[in-house]
Amino acid sequence: MKIIHTADWHLGRMLNGKSLLKDQAYILEQFITAMKEEQPDVIVIAGDVYDTSYPSKDAIQLLERTIDELNLSLNIPLIITSGNHDGKERLNYGARWFEKSNVYIRTQLDCMISPITIDHINFYTLPFATVSEVQHFFQHDTVETHQQATDLCLAHMSKEMDHNAMNMLIGHMTVQGGKRSESERPLTIGTVESVDRASFKDFNHVMLGHLHHPFSIDSDYISYSGSLLQYSFSEVSQPKGYRRVIVENDSIKNTFIPLKPLRELEVVEGDYEDAIQEKISIKNKENYLHFKLKNMSHVTDPMMHLKQIYPNTLALTNMSFDFENTYLEQREAIEQLDDNTIINNFYEDITSTELTMTQRNKITTILNKLTEGGNN
Amino acid sequence: MKIIHTADWHLGRMLNGKSLLKDQAYILEQFITAMKEEQPDVIVIAGDVYDTSYPSKDAIQLLERTIDELNLSLNIPLIITSGNHDGKERLNYGARWFEKSNVYIRTQLDCMISPITIDHINFYTLPFATVSEVQHFFQHDTVETHQQATDLCLAHMSKEMDHNAMNMLIGHMTVQGGKRSESERPLTIGTVESVDRASFKDFNHVMLGHLHHPFSIDSDYISYSGSLLQYSFSEVSQPKGYRRVIVENDSIKNTFIPLKPLRELEVVEGDYEDAIQEKISIKNKENYLHFKLKNMSHVTDPMMHLKQIYPNTLALTNMSFDFENTYLEQREAIEQLDDNTIINNFYEDITSTELTMTQRNKITTILNKLTEGGNN
Repeated sequence: MKIIHTADWHLGRMLNGKSLLKDQAYILEQFITAMKEEQPDVIVIAGDVYDTSYPSKDAIQLLERTIDELNLSLNIPLIITSGNHDGKERLNYGARWFEKSNVYIRTQLDCMISPITIDHINFYTLPFATVSEVQHFFQHDTVETHQQATDLCLAHMSKEMDHNAMNMLIGHMTVQGGKRSESERPLTIGTVESVDRASFKDFNHVMLGHLHHPFSIDSDYISYSGSLLQYSFSEVSQPKGYRRVIVENDSIKNTFIPLKPLRELEVVEGDYEDAIQEKISIKNKENYLHFKLKNMSHVTDPMMHLKQIYPNTLALTNMSFDFENTYLEQREAIEQLDDNTIINNFYEDITSTELTMTQRNKITTILNKLTEGGNN
Repeated sequence: MKIIHTADWHLGRMLNGKSLLKDQAYILEQFITAMKEEQPDVIVIAGDVYDTSYPSKDAIQLLERTIDELNLSLNIPLIITSGNHDGKERLNYGARWFEKSNVYIRTQLDCMISPITIDHINFYTLPFATVSEVQHFFQHDTVETHQQATDLCLAHMSKEMDHNAMNMLIGHMTVQGGKRSESERPLTIGTVESVDRASFKDFNHVMLGHLHHPFSIDSDYISYSGSLLQYSFSEVSQPKGYRRVIVENDSIKNTFIPLKPLRELEVVEGDYEDAIQEKISIKNKENYLHFKLKNMSHVTDPMMHLKQIYPNTLALTNMSFDFENTYLEQREAIEQLDDNTIINNFYEDITSTELTMTQRNKITTILNKLTEGGNN
């Protein structure tokens, strides 16, 4: 029995104003090609299929084309659950007709105790739900955290479950200790959203979506597939791909398989002039680039100049202003300096030029006056 | 063989800012109940299923629920084509899975020569297409009118057609001489959009959408089903329902069957005070009302006052301003009157009071001056 686990496709996603639809179509082509080789018994998509609850027609057509290839052409059953980015109703549209071809779309809580059984394995689905949706579903007053909400759902499943069978869970949530990326939208604002891994003890294997790093969590039986692509510059050099889960008798072997995207995200650091003169080290000029450059304060529209040379530039940080990497590290050193030097250094960092003698004198005069004032 | 012909559901339609979704859900319940009785061999929905290309989740859920009942519960095949209001891609979503349960969704021109054959009848579909889409499809330079575009499509079908079989056409267009309603959006701005009925000579029966009146056209073999509901006050007292088409040997019998809506549209004419004092004749206070009232110019917010008594009031016309019904008819009479009288009548119509003697004298003075000026 071979299961393919993927999640967080985020079809229709924009990155810094740039549509990633072409990149998504490209990587899904790679995925389909891989599936022709893999010939799995089922593909699991663990939520965040779309990036928004109101996907564009291009995004829905890309999903349709992809599941058409996987399901109708390659004849592979699919289990699709919804994540916090998906609109339940739109993702669920046509589910009863899809199911006739073994495309199981699960967006509602009431299906949680009806597993999909394929080749003796029970696949339980827990589509993303807010804490208040779970509270409402169970008519339970005291559900306040994702931990409580998940525990209620899992206990509900456990009661109905055949504990002698092999049971797997498909969900969309944060497990405690999971590595975060910037492209994951918080499930709830102001609430601890993570769930203790002990909650999943009744399952032989847990396939999750939400965290975008494929090695978000170190566990024998709980795993994230990671997202389809790098969706933020915090994910630079993270591998992206899918998980192959092989079940033989009682053993489960879970392997991450990387896929090669059309473009990766790349952070390029250095001097502005070097970048403009193409003397800066770049892995691939076609990548989506985030430049972090120094000595560019005198340039009027540095982004425009960069884009003329590197059309896929998506972000630019002026490193003269990068307090985290320069000022903060130097904070202790700063505390040792006198006021004149601090002001001079600040001026130099911001403008890339030194204070003139006239300016220095003026500052000294002002500082002296202030000190005198302070002594009165 | 029994065919049910319906069209122009316009799910998600608003009328004067009021969502008609509840009314649509209600009438579709009536339709489903009727279909349980009718037990047709196929239901044809000839375009404008949705009111917009980007339907709300409530609208898509209503469509899904309806075709679920008709197709999955009652096991009736459906043929659905797109109209000028539908978004082809969204309406077409999942079509290949739907088709496995005999729901045939046709939104693309390339399916025009692939009829759906049910019980020896070939159903040809011509989804709505703009003139330029047809031009592009045939790579033909000189398509400029709906007549030419339709003729090209029909000739293309005719070439492939088995002329000895019974062939029916499902389309979404205006046939010459068809009665128009205000709720139909023009197919193209500035182009004659109607198609000569002689164009359809190769078909035994033509089932159309677009015109909202079920008796839009007087023809033996071309018919409109009309819209699901009255969608503009120009459709007041138009019956709404579906068409039952019975085929026996070579004979085709086509009957309009009305359905009873939750509310009809009603125009109420009279005096404002009578309306407010509920002394005005209204068929059903629960109907969606368009008041056309006189003597209300002194009231600050007449709509608000009317809605307090008739909550389903959707429109209000001040009949003192209704030029079409008062002024224009009286134009000839006006030409016989002198200037003073015309001005006095105008003032009276607008303000519901007469000019004072001071005002009359002032006007006479001005008119005299103007006449003198003209003589110089």
